[in-house]
Order: sequence, then C-alpha cells, then structure tokens
Amino acid sequence: MAVGPIALDAMGGDFAPREMVKGAIMAASDFGIEVILVGQESKIESQLDELGWSGRDRISICHAPQVVEMSDAPSVVIRGKRQSSIRIASHLVRSGEAAGVVSAGNTGAAMAAARSEFRLAKGVQRAAIAQALPNRKGGTVVLDIGANVDCKMQHLVQFGVMGSVYASIVLKKPKPKVGLLSIGSEDTKGNDFTRRVLSAMREQPDIDFVGNIEGRDVFKGDVDVAVCDGFVGNIVLKITEGVAETVMGILRDALSSSIRGRAGAALARPAFAKLRKRMDSAEYGGAILLGVNGVCIICHGASGAKAVSNAIKRASDFATSRIVEQIAEKMDADSDKEKR
Amino acid sequence: MAVGPIALDAMGGDFAPREMVKGAIMAASDFGIEVILVGQESKIESQLDELGWSGRDRISICHAPQVVEMSDAPSVVIRGKRQSSIRIASHLVRSGEAAGVVSAGNTGAAMAAARSEFRLAKGVQRAAIAQALPNRKGGTVVLDIGANVDCKMQHLVQFGVMGSVYASIVLKKPKPKVGLLSIGSEDTKGNDFTRRVLSAMREQPDIDFVGNIEGRDVFKGDVDVAVCDGFVGNIVLKITEGVAETVMGILRDALSSSIRGRAGAALARPAFAKLRKRMDSAEYGGAILLGVNGVCIICHGASGAKAVSNAIKRASDFATSRIVEQIAEKMDADSDKEKR
Repeated sequence: MAVGPIALDAMGGDFAPREMVKGAIMAASDFGIEVILVGQESKIESQLDELGWSGRDRISICHAPQVVEMSDAPSVVIRGKRQSSIRIASHLVRSGEAAGVVSAGNTGAAMAAARSEFRLAKGVQRAAIAQALPNRKGGTVVLDIGANVDCKMQHLVQFGVMGSVYASIVLKKPKPKVGLLSIGSEDTKGNDFTRRVLSAMREQPDIDFVGNIEGRDVFKGDVDVAVCDGFVGNIVLKITEGVAETVMGILRDALSSSIRGRAGAALARPAFAKLRKRMDSAEYGGAILLGVNGVCIICHGASGAKAVSNAIKRASDFATSRIVEQIAEKMDADSDKEKR
Repeated sequence: MAVGPIALDAMGGDFAPREMVKGAIMAASDFGIEVILVGQESKIESQLDELGWSGRDRISICHAPQVVEMSDAPSVVIRGKRQSSIRIASHLVRSGEAAGVVSAGNTGAAMAAARSEFRLAKGVQRAAIAQALPNRKGGTVVLDIGANVDCKMQHLVQFGVMGSVYASIVLKKPKPKVGLLSIGSEDTKGNDFTRRVLSAMREQPDIDFVGNIEGRDVFKGDVDVAVCDGFVGNIVLKITEGVAETVMGILRDALSSSIRGRAGAALARPAFAKLRKRMDSAEYGGAILLGVNGVCIICHGASGAKAVSNAIKRASDFATSRIVEQIAEKMDADSDKEKR
C-alpha cells in the first residue's frame, strides 16, 4: 500500500549528496518507494546522471537553494536558512506532498525543522528521538537519545508513553515492558532526578512499567523500552557503538596475527557477516523523532546508501502503520484525562 | 619489594567465601603476596582445608563475626555491623597491619568503611571510584563509576585531577589526557551541568584537559581519563559490559549454527581467548576508590578466584607505587593554592 513519497534531505550527511542519491535509487528500485530528493537541483541532477539512473519515474527533485552545515546552530532553519533542504523537505510532509522526511544531516536542525513544520502533537511537552538497539532477542527502544539534554520529570514520563506506543508497533508487542534507565533495579537506586521520575512513572497506568533497569538490561532483551534523558541516552548510544567497534577490532587484530587465526576467520566469515549485520547501525539504524505530527527519520551522519535506503523504507513503513497518529491519539487522550 | 599484606574481605561477593579464599591462595602462590583473610574464621578455615592449602605461611585469618549483605544500606558498617569483615579489613589498613583492602561485596559498604577508617584525603570533597575500560590501544580510566550519583561542579574537577594522577601511574603516561564525558566535542555540547564543569576544568592548570569527549572516544584510546558523575559512569560501565557480552553472544550463536562456523570457531579459539582476556573484567577489573587515605580495591560482585587474585595483586602494586600518597599530595597542594 503506497502512502506517498518520502522526502529525502539530499544535502545532509557526511557523504551527501552522493550517498543520499544512491540511497534514494536503492529505495526506489529495491522497495519501489517514491522518493523526492530535496536539495540543490544541479548537484542532484549530476549525481543521478553519474549513477546512470534513467528510470526516473519513482524519483523526483525538489529544489532547495540552501544547505545546513553540521556546524550550524539548530535555529538556523527557523531564522537564517528557511530555504534549506531539510526545511523544505519537512514542509513537503506538512503540505501533504510527502509521507515522511529522512535526513542524515545536522540532527538539531532536522529536529527544529520538524518541530517548526509539523508542530508538537497535542499534549506533548517535548519531542524525543527513539532508536532501537540490538540485543540477542531482538531490540530495545531507547529514548531520548539526544533531543533533550536537560529534562523535567514529566518529560521522561511522556517518553515512556510514546516509547511504549512506538515499541508496540516496531517490536510487534502488544504491551511492551518499559524500564527507567538507572544504576540498579531497586527503587532506592538512581540519582535525585531519576528517583522522582520513578515515582511518577509508577503512577502512569497506560504503560507496563517494570521500574529501574541497569545498563546491562538494555541488551538482555527483558525490557522493550528504556527511558532516559537525552544526555544519558546519547552517551549510551555512542558507548554502544564504541564497544561494538572495539570488540570487533580487537577480534580482527587477534585473528589476523596468525595463520591459524586467518584460516579460522575465513571459515567464520558468514558468522562475522551475520554479527556485523546485527550490530550495524545501517541495519537497525535510523532513529525516529517521536511526539511531532509527521514522520521524521534521523540517520547517522556517516550513513552510506544502504543506511539511507533502509531509513527511507522505515519512513514509508511508519507512515503506513500510522505511528505518528497513534502516538498523537494516545498523548491527546492522556492530556484530556489530566484535565478532568 | 613487599609492602605488607593485603586484607581481603573474605565474606563479600556472590561466591564468597569460596572464591575469595581461592583467590587469596592464587595471589599467595602465584604472586607471593601475603594475604589476610578477614571474615568468619570457621568458614574460612574449612575452605582452606577443603582446598588443601597447607603452606599457610603467606595466608593468615583475622576473625570478623559479622557479614554485610548486598541488600544492607552502606551506613550499616558505621552504625550496625561494626564487626563486619569489610569494616575490620579496612581497619587493618588504618592500623598499618595491611597495605590495602580488597572487597567484592556491597560496594556502598566498602566505600563507607574506607571513608570512615581511612578518611578523605586533605582537600578532597568526594572520593570517586575509577576503573580502566579496555580499548584497542590499552585502557581509558573512567571516573566516577558509581560512588556519587549527584555531583557538584567542583567534584568533577577534582575527579579530573585524581584521575590524572592515577592514570599517570597505571597507564605509565607522564601527562595523561583528560576529557569530560559529554555528547559532542564542541564546547556548546552537553547539558547545563557539564557545560559549567567544562569551563571550570579549563581553568585547572594541572591537567592536560582536552575538553568534551563523546562516548566513542572512551574506546578510541585518544584520551586517558574520562570524567563523569557516578550516575553516568555506572551506566557507561554496565552498557560496556552488556554490549561486549551481546556481541560475543551473537557471534557464538552465529558460529555454532553451522559446521563451517564451528570449524572456524575451533581454529579461531586462541583469538577468541585473547579477546575475552582483553574484555574480561577479571583481567582489567578491580576498581579503585580514589581520594581516601588508603588503598581500597572494589571488585565486581560476581568475581571469581582469578579476578580476586588479580585485585590483590593490584592492591599490592598500588601500595608499592604510593598512588594514595601521590593523590593526597596533589590534592593537598591544590587546596593550599586555593587558599592563597
């Protein structure tokens, strides 16, 4: 079921526009998804020509003269670069011309564009970025991973509710287990802030709240949603990437240091490929901004074509499954309840 | 050069007293270190008998009737169980009968015992737990990993100074690079708290401060000390353990699922052993409490004999290298400077 095209910020990301255009072609040819490439038309045109993409029926271009740099402050999309690719791409969603937006560019700018164009869903105090991290059983949704570095208690409670709705869809679990990321499972564990959040989350009847969880629990797969503020969440995300790279690096070094190791590595190649696929952010990657009235997928800055193509697929899937609407309905109902 | 015996809390840890007694025997026989086993004499005696340890010249027992449980509040060693193994073991250091204490028991209780028996070093506002995490080049010292969940700005600045002295000794680097754990390298990145800490750390002339670092940088090996509060640090530690276990678990599953994979795994066994050794907390493990006037090594609750034996070795090495005295001198000099 086609939900409409996905708007791709063709100018955002360390390898833009090349990998963005390649990713769009992959999404169009592999998944049959319509993609609108938003950015500087001449640059996009020449990339498309270079890549020999002739069947342009599923790919279109929407010109945007300005480019947001990684060093730009998020507010640039509101005040300075209103004609930037990310702002115009987000606007296409608002106007109904696209079903979702994908960007590997400046995360703060993508969020600001989404908040400004889509607006926060009714009752939502802060939008949050959610990302599923791999574990042996599947995945755990962690949020917020960077949208809000300083949070109030109620923000985290809302992240729990939004994360629960999101996990119920992406992990296909009717009643996801939600945990508060802390430093021990007992109620007394945590800092002043998380202890107050814990009490507030216990009062939230709409989620299956399991209480405090530890860092290790994120990877055990016993909990589906891990709630934290954006400072802690971003550190968790980057530690995870760092450890996974380190483990694989140490193993590579150890294997290549002997003939026996190299022979073992050759035989084990399919297993390593499976591991890489599980740990690769290009596979599980693409974070979603929850709490706004539109689908906004934020990719890793270093995303290559495959990651971009997967993110486009996710944006399309999320539009189909009406994640944004489901979260908005839930948050609206909650805010109505509070008023009564 | 013998610095005196190490007092081991024989009753603390998931596998106490058995693994503690075994670890003491290993340390005595492999490293020639004198160990005082502190705990319930009859239980320790029967373990020693069971393990057939006859050459008791390097192992002695100091009876302590009480045991601190994992569920006990840290203050129990001050108010309730003053005759507990951890309290008495710490006292042996204070009285000069032992050169350091090692415990795999209740971390809060071990800290409380150390603070109460050793006292904070002059000028130190808070003691912090430091632990080296493995990276491809060697290790990065992370502190605080759990002693202080709510910190003030000045606490983190002091952690930077203490961590620098510690890293200069354990990593053998004359001028260790110190970073503040945040969510991006630019000065604007972080939360309200870390941005204030950043300014204060820049004013600290005694450390080679590189500014903000990201989670990934901890594992790149470009920085020797990563400073954070105990809430964030504890999450970092447990995420690291969780990811390492997950990666190895996924790889094990993938390898064992085919004949080819099993053959590869057999050949790659030495490489896997090397990886496990690098990642194993028993090898790099044993955290140290910095900022008190005595050597206190805190082991993972699940420590086995090897981890305990390594921790005893570290305690003895730390006593030899006068880490505690070097930190105390540095902090004392700093506090004098501030007064002028």
